[in-house]
Amino acid sequence: MSIPKLDYSKLDGLVTAVIQDWKTQRVLMVGFMNEEAFQKTLETGKCCFYSRTRNKLWIKGESSGHFLIVKEMRTDCDFDTLLISAEAIGPGVCHEGYASCFAKQLNENQEFVYVDKQTYNPDEVYKN
Amino acid sequence: MSIPKLDYSKLDGLVTAVIQDWKTQRVLMVGFMNEEAFQKTLETGKCCFYSRTRNKLWIKGESSGHFLIVKEMRTDCDFDTLLISAEAIGPGVCHEGYASCFAKQLNENQEFVYVDKQTYNPDEVYKN
Repeated sequence: MSIPKLDYSKLDGLVTAVIQDWKTQRVLMVGFMNEEAFQKTLETGKCCFYSRTRNKLWIKGESSGHFLIVKEMRTDCDFDTLLISAEAIGPGVCHEGYASCFAKQLNENQEFVYVDKQTYNPDEVYKN
Repeated sequence: MSIPKLDYSKLDGLVTAVIQDWKTQRVLMVGFMNEEAFQKTLETGKCCFYSRTRNKLWIKGESSGHFLIVKEMRTDCDFDTLLISAEAIGPGVCHEGYASCFAKQLNENQEFVYVDKQTYNPDEVYKN
């Protein structure tokens, strides 16, 4: 299978991947993919990222079961960012127990505070 | 004015900023901000980015008039990504003449092809 052209040069071998809920249009998370992670995403139909802190590939959902099933993929004018429309399996994408990782909003006092409610208890999902 | 806490350490002094249309929820573009760009965004209410290729700040719209007016800001669990809900002034955000920079979709042949139609003629807007 050929791999679509993307430009990994601007971020040391990575492209940014924005994951958007295919029905609600809500932005669920942002991660990074190297070429291997992108290829794995294409092959499996599940979003696979490259962890910069752990220095390895990870399929979103591999420990929680909260997979992100690819519905549509787009790229931007520079070919260095992916916008993936996905179906989020399970109650939430964020490992802190929220539907979206973007659960914190800037308030009038210039502080980011949680405005969303948890959709599940992360302690029951992410054991160990 | 105090500056809200963000983590710039993972991307060499930058955070990723996803810009989403405040009404349609469409993702319009993705850029990067250093702390100065973020501060300028807060102060002016217009999205300001750091250009990695030109190595300088730029206010989106400074040459085209297509400003992005901040309506809401969110950050994620790691404080290293911004999700900005914005009003896009003008016919399009992309310098190639499209409403969104994400005008190309992956097709069945694993190629990214334009699926959107241009909303303006970039040659008439980006004059030198």
